[in-house]
Amino acid sequence: MGARREPIEYDAATPEVRAVYDDIMATRNTDWVNNFWKVLAHDPASLRRIWANIKEVMGAGALDPLTKELLYVAVSASNGCRYCIASHGAAARKRGMTQAQYSELLAIVALANETNTLVTALDVAVDPQFL
Amino acid sequence: MGARREPIEYDAATPEVRAVYDDIMATRNTDWVNNFWKVLAHDPASLRRIWANIKEVMGAGALDPLTKELLYVAVSASNGCRYCIASHGAAARKRGMTQAQYSELLAIVALANETNTLVTALDVAVDPQFL
Amino acid sequence: MGARREPIEYDAATPEVRAVYDDIMATRNTDWVNNFWKVLAHDPASLRRIWANIKEVMGAGALDPLTKELLYVAVSASNGCRYCIASHGAAARKRGMTQAQYSELLAIVALANETNTLVTALDVAVDPQFL
Amino acid sequence: MGARREPIEYDAATPEVRAVYDDIMATRNTDWVNNFWKVLAHDPASLRRIWANIKEVMGAGALDPLTKELLYVAVSASNGCRYCIASHGAAARKRGMTQAQYSELLAIVALANETNTLVTALDVAVDPQFL
Amino acid sequence: MGARREPIEYDAATPEVRAVYDDIMATRNTDWVNNFWKVLAHDPASLRRIWANIKEVMGAGALDPLTKELLYVAVSASNGCRYCIASHGAAARKRGMTQAQYSELLAIVALANETNTLVTALDVAVDPQFL
Amino acid sequence: MGARREPIEYDAATPEVRAVYDDIMATRNTDWVNNFWKVLAHDPASLRRIWANIKEVMGAGALDPLTKELLYVAVSASNGCRYCIASHGAAARKRGMTQAQYSELLAIVALANETNTLVTALDVAVDPQFL
Repeated sequence: MGARREPIEYDAATPEVRAVYDDIMATRNTDWVNNFWKVLAHDPASLRRIWANIKEVMGAGALDPLTKELLYVAVSASNGCRYCIASHGAAARKRGMTQAQYSELLAIVALANETNTLVTALDVAVDPQFL
Repeated sequence: MGARREPIEYDAATPEVRAVYDDIMATRNTDWVNNFWKVLAHDPASLRRIWANIKEVMGAGALDPLTKELLYVAVSASNGCRYCIASHGAAARKRGMTQAQYSELLAIVALANETNTLVTALDVAVDPQFL
Repeated sequence: MGARREPIEYDAATPEVRAVYDDIMATRNTDWVNNFWKVLAHDPASLRRIWANIKEVMGAGALDPLTKELLYVAVSASNGCRYCIASHGAAARKRGMTQAQYSELLAIVALANETNTLVTALDVAVDPQFL
Repeated sequence: MGARREPIEYDAATPEVRAVYDDIMATRNTDWVNNFWKVLAHDPASLRRIWANIKEVMGAGALDPLTKELLYVAVSASNGCRYCIASHGAAARKRGMTQAQYSELLAIVALANETNTLVTALDVAVDPQFL
Repeated sequence: MGARREPIEYDAATPEVRAVYDDIMATRNTDWVNNFWKVLAHDPASLRRIWANIKEVMGAGALDPLTKELLYVAVSASNGCRYCIASHGAAARKRGMTQAQYSELLAIVALANETNTLVTALDVAVDPQFL
Repeated sequence: MGARREPIEYDAATPEVRAVYDDIMATRNTDWVNNFWKVLAHDPASLRRIWANIKEVMGAGALDPLTKELLYVAVSASNGCRYCIASHGAAARKRGMTQAQYSELLAIVALANETNTLVTALDVAVDPQFL
């Protein structure tokens, strides 16, 4: 067995899995479910749990929906998770992210990786003004 | 020599270094320079170059200043760079980040690290809808 | 030259390399050698050295063989090394890992990445009870 | 504000936070709560949500409790999260982990980081036997 | 939109982008531009800025050109960036890197990842002799 | 138990451990052993094995001794391992690394982290010229 598992389509899913798929589509107002959930469905407990986390954390809160997706894309880009960039990038565009904003986001993410590396290697002491 | 180098204070700095310090303070409208730059000042070429990058990337653009700092904090939190969290967290608060927004940002960053790990380990294929 | 080098098959290998291949097959009681070793064989010194490390560390010890492979899979999943997940996943299944155990392992690995991120970003002080 | 927030002690906690603390102590059969939760308590929603995840993922399942903690320690060691090594290391020892087993775990984690790096850099193709 | 953007060829590029392409080719004394720059060209400001950084940092300095490329390859190998290994590996070979040196470099990178993991997990105190 | 273990001094060490310490000092022509080995000594098998790896990989080969230490420092800086930066930085200085070279090394490491992030996030296709 390699790392990749086949997605479980709606028609082949158990009622428990279908209930999560239904909630994903209702919450997002779409008529399809993306592969992450269909692959995670091999482990229904994780499917239910991870979806509950995403629904809560990415739902209405103190940050607006676009900013939340931008943050998700930024971390995914920093981690080099291409699927995550593609899926959360799509969600961000749906909420209004322009191509210019995406380019700027990538520039910030890459620069932060450069300066984070320098700061850590130089072991810079935190300024009292920041405490 | 350990990893940590002493910060170079303004009074002890060369004219070349002072020029960068002056530009940092003028750009940020502050009367002090934080340790990252004062440590980087041991290598004036890097000081000048990195500051020019930060100034350009974090300056006016397609994303608003608060969102830009939130993205910087998010990447720094994901990378575990405490100095960077402290310094860019301070910059974000100056631009209006509330404590509730910071908590939400951390929740997103941590959750993205969880799902990025799952997606990569499961080697999920990118949905055609995302291409 | 790209990053990928062709595997060196047994028939094309030098006696020095064949000796390692033979030891790998004898130790594992198999009749084939997986690609990692056949690619590493371009550098016979590394082939011999890395195999000696694997043989010693993954051999009989204080932890049982299945647990050792589970730990190897967990680190590989956390690092996003798909080849390593595939190869050590196969070794773990050979030693009895079930699909339910693998799903649980992935859930733990992903959750640890979430909480590790939070703990580091929040710079939590170690409790005296843990010292 | 630096990265570090003060732990919220039981006496100073809101009823909502106390309810989580109580559940942590009841689940673990202890009379104290470790700093991670007391720091996370500044964000009660995250406190409740992360605890619910830990409780479910680390609860009874297909893997025995010691193996689960060993996996958590392994990922934390690979990520360099010292608090997490300390806290989950304590949990693992409570479930029987010996010093020899811990040394062996560290050796596996470190070796996996070595071979993961080599495999990824060499871009080794997955053997058909692993698919 | 997926993560991958099409490269912008010279004939299709704006004068601003062509000026950077021209400088890349003149600096490197080649008649083609590699994909990184042609993909980055969708964001001309980043194209110009990143190239200026590479030109300055990788230009003449205190370290010889081969050593500089070896360091770039080493970090790229440690990060698992295959494109970067391929492109900077080619640059290193052009400057004289032999296959034996590349194998040795990979061995060092992988071993450093092993010992870095051990040192961090064991939280080793810096010796006074190193301060 | 926290993550940190006390170093085992020569006088308190077993003959097996002393033999490794002796070989470290003889190989390096020094009269002391640094903390990494004294902490690793709690696990004599790992002490012996890791030392044998370092001795072989960092010994005479296709790359000169200074370049080897520079590569070790670069990976350690990229990984943010401060002890490793301090110890291998000292070894590099002993072999002639100047402060200007160290600054240049850090600039390369940090820039590589920036461009590696961009390349991976943009999923740049490897040019046929690099294959």
